[in-house]
Amino acid sequence: MMQVPLTVGSMLEHAEKFFAKKQVISQTHDQLHRLTYKEIGERTRRLMGVLKGLGINHGDRVGTLAWNHHRHLEIYFAAPGIGSVLHTINIRLSPEHIIYIINHAEDKILFIDEDILPLIEKVADQLKTVEAFVVMTDKSELPTSSLQPLYSYEELLRSGNPATEFIKDIDENDPAGMCYTSATTGKPKGVVYSHRGIVLHSFALGLTDSAGLSESDISMPVVPQFHVNAWGIPFASTWLGTTQVLPGPRFTPKRLAEFIEREKVTITAGVPTIWLGLLRELEQGDYDTSSLRAILCGGSAAPRGLIKTFESKYNIPFIHAYGATETTPIVTVSRLKSYQQSLGEEEKLDQRSKQGLLVPGLEMKIMGSDGEVKWDGLEMGELLVRGPWIASEYYNDDRTANAFQDGWFHTGDVVTVDEEGVIKIVDRTKDLIKSGGEWISSVDLENALMAHDAVFEASVVAIPDPEWQERPVACVVLNEGFSDKVSKDELQNFLKPQFAKWWLPDDILFFDEIPKTSVGKFLKRELREQVKAHYKMS
Amino acid sequence: MMQVPLTVGSMLEHAEKFFAKKQVISQTHDQLHRLTYKEIGERTRRLMGVLKGLGINHGDRVGTLAWNHHRHLEIYFAAPGIGSVLHTINIRLSPEHIIYIINHAEDKILFIDEDILPLIEKVADQLKTVEAFVVMTDKSELPTSSLQPLYSYEELLRSGNPATEFIKDIDENDPAGMCYTSATTGKPKGVVYSHRGIVLHSFALGLTDSAGLSESDISMPVVPQFHVNAWGIPFASTWLGTTQVLPGPRFTPKRLAEFIEREKVTITAGVPTIWLGLLRELEQGDYDTSSLRAILCGGSAAPRGLIKTFESKYNIPFIHAYGATETTPIVTVSRLKSYQQSLGEEEKLDQRSKQGLLVPGLEMKIMGSDGEVKWDGLEMGELLVRGPWIASEYYNDDRTANAFQDGWFHTGDVVTVDEEGVIKIVDRTKDLIKSGGEWISSVDLENALMAHDAVFEASVVAIPDPEWQERPVACVVLNEGFSDKVSKDELQNFLKPQFAKWWLPDDILFFDEIPKTSVGKFLKRELREQVKAHYKMS
Repeated sequence: MMQVPLTVGSMLEHAEKFFAKKQVISQTHDQLHRLTYKEIGERTRRLMGVLKGLGINHGDRVGTLAWNHHRHLEIYFAAPGIGSVLHTINIRLSPEHIIYIINHAEDKILFIDEDILPLIEKVADQLKTVEAFVVMTDKSELPTSSLQPLYSYEELLRSGNPATEFIKDIDENDPAGMCYTSATTGKPKGVVYSHRGIVLHSFALGLTDSAGLSESDISMPVVPQFHVNAWGIPFASTWLGTTQVLPGPRFTPKRLAEFIEREKVTITAGVPTIWLGLLRELEQGDYDTSSLRAILCGGSAAPRGLIKTFESKYNIPFIHAYGATETTPIVTVSRLKSYQQSLGEEEKLDQRSKQGLLVPGLEMKIMGSDGEVKWDGLEMGELLVRGPWIASEYYNDDRTANAFQDGWFHTGDVVTVDEEGVIKIVDRTKDLIKSGGEWISSVDLENALMAHDAVFEASVVAIPDPEWQERPVACVVLNEGFSDKVSKDELQNFLKPQFAKWWLPDDILFFDEIPKTSVGKFLKRELREQVKAHYKMS
Repeated sequence: MMQVPLTVGSMLEHAEKFFAKKQVISQTHDQLHRLTYKEIGERTRRLMGVLKGLGINHGDRVGTLAWNHHRHLEIYFAAPGIGSVLHTINIRLSPEHIIYIINHAEDKILFIDEDILPLIEKVADQLKTVEAFVVMTDKSELPTSSLQPLYSYEELLRSGNPATEFIKDIDENDPAGMCYTSATTGKPKGVVYSHRGIVLHSFALGLTDSAGLSESDISMPVVPQFHVNAWGIPFASTWLGTTQVLPGPRFTPKRLAEFIEREKVTITAGVPTIWLGLLRELEQGDYDTSSLRAILCGGSAAPRGLIKTFESKYNIPFIHAYGATETTPIVTVSRLKSYQQSLGEEEKLDQRSKQGLLVPGLEMKIMGSDGEVKWDGLEMGELLVRGPWIASEYYNDDRTANAFQDGWFHTGDVVTVDEEGVIKIVDRTKDLIKSGGEWISSVDLENALMAHDAVFEASVVAIPDPEWQERPVACVVLNEGFSDKVSKDELQNFLKPQFAKWWLPDDILFFDEIPKTSVGKFLKRELREQVKAHYKMS
């Protein structure tokens, strides 16, 4: 067979040629843009010329601090398109972490959204490798800024050569992108994505049984483009000619609902928090969401009740998926097998609430204390994964040795696997509650609590216990209108029939808000401190 | 990212684990088998143990002379599963060509269907490298045969170790399979498929916009497993957990129709001749074909009328595709783009009668006499393709230099491409008719003739002409009941409004049968000789 490398640039080239008329609909600060793939292609080629002109060479890192919009999409292809590396930076991290990340990745240039400029201005003097800043604005004038040199994206583009070619003659294992995980402890850890990994992952997203992205879809990635490449959806959507809706900066649930209705979005993707917010919006407004064929939900486990509400009340198929920054990210997708369609509604929902089936192209292994666990849906073990879109290391980081062993990525997620091969996350290895020598899944308790009508969010953490070693405490945020109307006892009684007695939380605390990571996951380390402070534990 | 090679064996391993209960339904000479992927997996592992025991080493060629059935499927995975090479041999070739192929590929072992044994017995003394023969039979006794040594497949399997592991630590560019093209002139030419190529091609088949194979499908490849791996459908179906129906030896249209009805086949694939036959059967019998979501048709261009009849009369979506032995084979699939759904029915049919859109992962180029042709649907040029599942050479064959140039495979097919990027085959480079310095497409004339109710098949060839250099003559087979009821003039008058006057055939000859290649394509070289003989030309 021909030795043709899989390259990120070739995906946009395909769209330019075969889906020239299809559109990217992009919300920026000031306006809604509609560009065809032909235009996106030409602009990307111009940008590649610009990058070369600014001295960006093979392997150099191109940093972005940006929301989901077409300019960000253009950098997705332009940076790897000249052999440099797209480095998406999580704008929700602390300034310290952002400084660390930019210096650690040695970014040579930063592309920054207008509203994020102040954040970078404050830390600019601590950035050691950045040689140029580009602001992505719709305005014709550059904003006043202390950043030097500062360029306007659109002005640069006008000077770029629209005939610049995508690099073809590269090793497909060369880096194309990178992203740092928002670690809950310590410094963020860098993950490098290869051209090969991104292309194979895009194939996986196009499979009918995973996301099934197609030309006839209208996809709206709500998951940020600075978070694992918006789960790779912009790459795959471009390649497959899918119309894309990029919802822009600081979107609200209302804007998302309006986009779904107006642009007839067929598939969207994001974390549970987003869908909880959308649900509230749908309950308040009158939106036509009938175009949606799938909400992809990942990042953390979606409560069973959330899935049920979307499907039964709004008739929107809700598809649970699982992955991580280290896995590009797709690892499993939860769909019923054909012969499971005859199960009862509740059984089907139980099955679909799990994280799902491994996508083709990957391998998995679930390691309990005595080797691989039984596929019985009961035994718990850590999920290990392997495959061509799984990272092999953290970038220049000695924490690699912990997570990557013997050719497997140790996810840190504790799962069960049933006889169908479907995994269910029961906890993070570090969040499991060890009570009297047995394990209690904080996630199971959280999901059960979140199925209660009054509960908006629930997070369960361990507190030290002299007798049992650890005991669970539940932290609950109530839905609007329910405060003071629901007691601890009521929630305890709600849990009782569902769990063994020793699983029940020792206490239930009510919170206005549960601390979260920058990507919306419960920040249990912080929560544990708050709970311990509440009990005046040290 | 991890350096994990793409391997054929890993695809069956995925099915064994995650689709253990799904079935392969297989017709052999004596019975209908139903095996689960778990069983297929175990049997394949046993077979791998057997192959090793018989001295088959890395890179050795394992020949098959067999129909579509589960044992053939097991060899599909077992041969590459131990690092050796699956070599499927076209049983419809002449004995001379079969001898040539086996000697040229240096097959070390042959797996043979019971009814094909006599063919091999006759030529066995001319096979230079074969060390063992295995007969695939349901019977417990070995058939009487002069082949030595001759083993029984099922007996060998009983002795094989079911814990044999699929090889993992290989270069994904290593050969996994090979197939010889049934050349119309000269010796057959060998094409080698790599592990990488087969896996990437399987991804392409799983994309929603190509075949969209999924777990919920029931696929029936009618295209022979000895012909470009049955278009790769058994590989992709296994990987994706699709139920497979393998229709076995010497099937009839009746058996196909019965399988579709009884097994609720959702997708099937084959050449136009098969579907012409199935159409006749459907017209005679009363079959429920409502399970079918797609007939994939390739190998040669399907007449527009055939597509129309399947869709309008039987409500069966008919999907045109294009490929070649050298391309694993999928290159294009003909589906409407979303914005073409609003076209009129006839326009849609026109569009879908074309060969379609390039699948993601490949590149194409259409070269006319003055460089790349315009995408106007008019200019004709030769189709060149490139990509990771396109062959880079013919195996040990100096005809490589003609077909593979500058990194592109020259298909020998003359096409037009419209502004949507959709290609339409207008001819083979060698079958184009050059009349008065202009080109006439034999395929266009054939399709027009085959749209006439009376015409079953039509093939148009060039005859030498002193004035115009070449002129077209049409050779027509009439449908049953139409002989002597349709005149040349009627057919000429039917064509007149559709073509420029100089395109019209000089003559129309009626035939009982049109000579075909072993895979059902018109054998124009032979037909031209018959036509010339008819006119007593030399």
